Amino acid sequence: MSSTESPDAATVFYEQLENLEDEFEEVELELLRQQAKLTKDLYAKRAKVIAQIPSFWPLVFEQAPPDIDEYVQPTDSAVLLSSLVDLSVERFELPDGDPRSIAIKFEFSENEYFENKVLEKKFWWRRNKDGWAGLVSEPVKINWKPGKDLTSGLLDLVYQVWEDDKAGKGDDTEAKKKLKEQMESTGLDGVSFFAWFGFRGLSISEEENKAAVKEEQEKRQARKEGKPVDEDMDEEDDDDEDDDEYEMEIFPTADDLAVCIAEDLWPGAIKYFLTAQELDGQSDISFESDEEMDEDEAAAQPSKKRKA
Amino acid sequence: MSSTESPDAATVFYEQLENLEDEFEEVELELLRQQAKLTKDLYAKRAKVIAQIPSFWPLVFEQAPPDIDEYVQPTDSAVLLSSLVDLSVERFELPDGDPRSIAIKFEFSENEYFENKVLEKKFWWRRNKDGWAGLVSEPVKINWKPGKDLTSGLLDLVYQVWEDDKAGKGDDTEAKKKLKEQMESTGLDGVSFFAWFGFRGLSISEEENKAAVKEEQEKRQARKEGKPVDEDMDEEDDDDEDDDEYEMEIFPTADDLAVCIAEDLWPGAIKYFLTAQELDGQSDISFESDEEMDEDEAAAQPSKKRKA
Repeated sequence: MSSTESPDAATVFYEQLENLEDEFEEVELELLRQQAKLTKDLYAKRAKVIAQIPSFWPLVFEQAPPDIDEYVQPTDSAVLLSSLVDLSVERFELPDGDPRSIAIKFEFSENEYFENKVLEKKFWWRRNKDGWAGLVSEPVKINWKPGKDLTSGLLDLVYQVWEDDKAGKGDDTEAKKKLKEQMESTGLDGVSFFAWFGFRGLSISEEENKAAVKEEQEKRQARKEGKPVDEDMDEEDDDDEDDDEYEMEIFPTADDLAVCIAEDLWPGAIKYFLTAQELDGQSDISFESDEEMDEDEAAAQPSKKRKA
Repeated sequence: MSSTESPDAATVFYEQLENLEDEFEEVELELLRQQAKLTKDLYAKRAKVIAQIPSFWPLVFEQAPPDIDEYVQPTDSAVLLSSLVDLSVERFELPDGDPRSIAIKFEFSENEYFENKVLEKKFWWRRNKDGWAGLVSEPVKINWKPGKDLTSGLLDLVYQVWEDDKAGKGDDTEAKKKLKEQMESTGLDGVSFFAWFGFRGLSISEEENKAAVKEEQEKRQARKEGKPVDEDMDEEDDDDEDDDEYEMEIFPTADDLAVCIAEDLWPGAIKYFLTAQELDGQSDISFESDEEMDEDEAAAQPSKKRKA
């Protein structure tokens, strides 16, 4: 706060702002719950229509906004185009849990890259004892066909590290060393979209989350009642552990990407699909010939004709 | 649709998708109404707290997301920093009208650039007979102090053109010629944020909007009942007029920016303000000295100390 204000005034403002943020967050959660309720049947209906349209999801991905598209490498794009048959997003902790937790499920047809027919990644909204709150996840294993690992081994290593961690094997495992080496030597530029399945985020146990949520609620209640709150005290010393965690992350922005899929690509899928159709010059239900396509569009998308 | 499908199947899918989009749009509008209802008192409460915090809105703008920040030139930034005292966003057609219509009001203290204490820009959600729907607006006049026009005359010309258009003066007015010339000679790169107040968008009268909304509702009803719909017929020939309209636009993406202010900056203001405070190293209510500030933050923001 401005130094012309006394610290007391600053404290009061700060706490009032925090109170407001708490109240806005409650409204946001309520709106997410309402949204889920109001759209549930519609998404089910949509899924039935989509299931009858060939290449619906690949075309949606082709028109994905930059925040998603930037992560889809040409090979990823080829995989999605040839074999993505369904996508679904679920706020799986509803009705009782946090509406910010999301599960994103990809379904694939037979393809030359991996054996999996379904790849589902779950993100849990969690809070830790240091006051951090956000999405955390677990690595998803992809059964690559021989020589076809799009992540060049990164995803397998992340999965192995996770298993080692669960088994309490400490910080000096073979997999951790290899993963660090490979990340340092090759970097993460141009990493495959499929590395996204490796994201973990902070490690927060169910118990820690419960305790942290309870503590936060008590803090908020105290702040609301104008009682002194032990603010930020433990939020400052969360460096060491977290930094280590993020060093092993092969797709550090996976949580943002998940939100973007859930809040943009998923609800906007029909819009993106229709855009793709228009760019293909086949949007008209009367199937006009290409001559009648807008010239600018034709120039911008000369080779985007979709195979039948 | 894929050419392996018969046109009839494609038509059916297309209409089903359009029906779904109609239904999703209804839900979206309902959620916007709910949001407005649930947040109304909170925003009023927030305004009271904010009014007591010096430089709240300038600091929010300093931390604005890239979609907004890219339009704020250094001089604009200086104006906002020195004299923006309040910002408010209202969905002014509620409760009965369209919740997508937004009014954005800036309040300023005395400054060396313009006389206005309030600059309010309204965006109406409107539909035209060609099937287009979106935000339209009217130019807002800024009373620049001598030699201080941040738009180098563009905004005044846009305002004059608008008055000429209202008076039915045709396409050959002095102001139109000048505006075209100036836009062609200087381009719009690096144009001031304040040019945003000049945006008009498509010209859609109240009557045209009403007729178009009614027609659209009838179309949707027919589609829902599976009756043949005269789709897209008139959506193809809207080129000439609209293109002319956009040629005279000095801030063509003003509608997107308005939405970004309304849906990101405005609801996220406390978050952005607290980020600014943190970057200033003064976030702690105990006013710790700078030594205790996180080193990365200090390195990233060496000169961002805010004046008292």
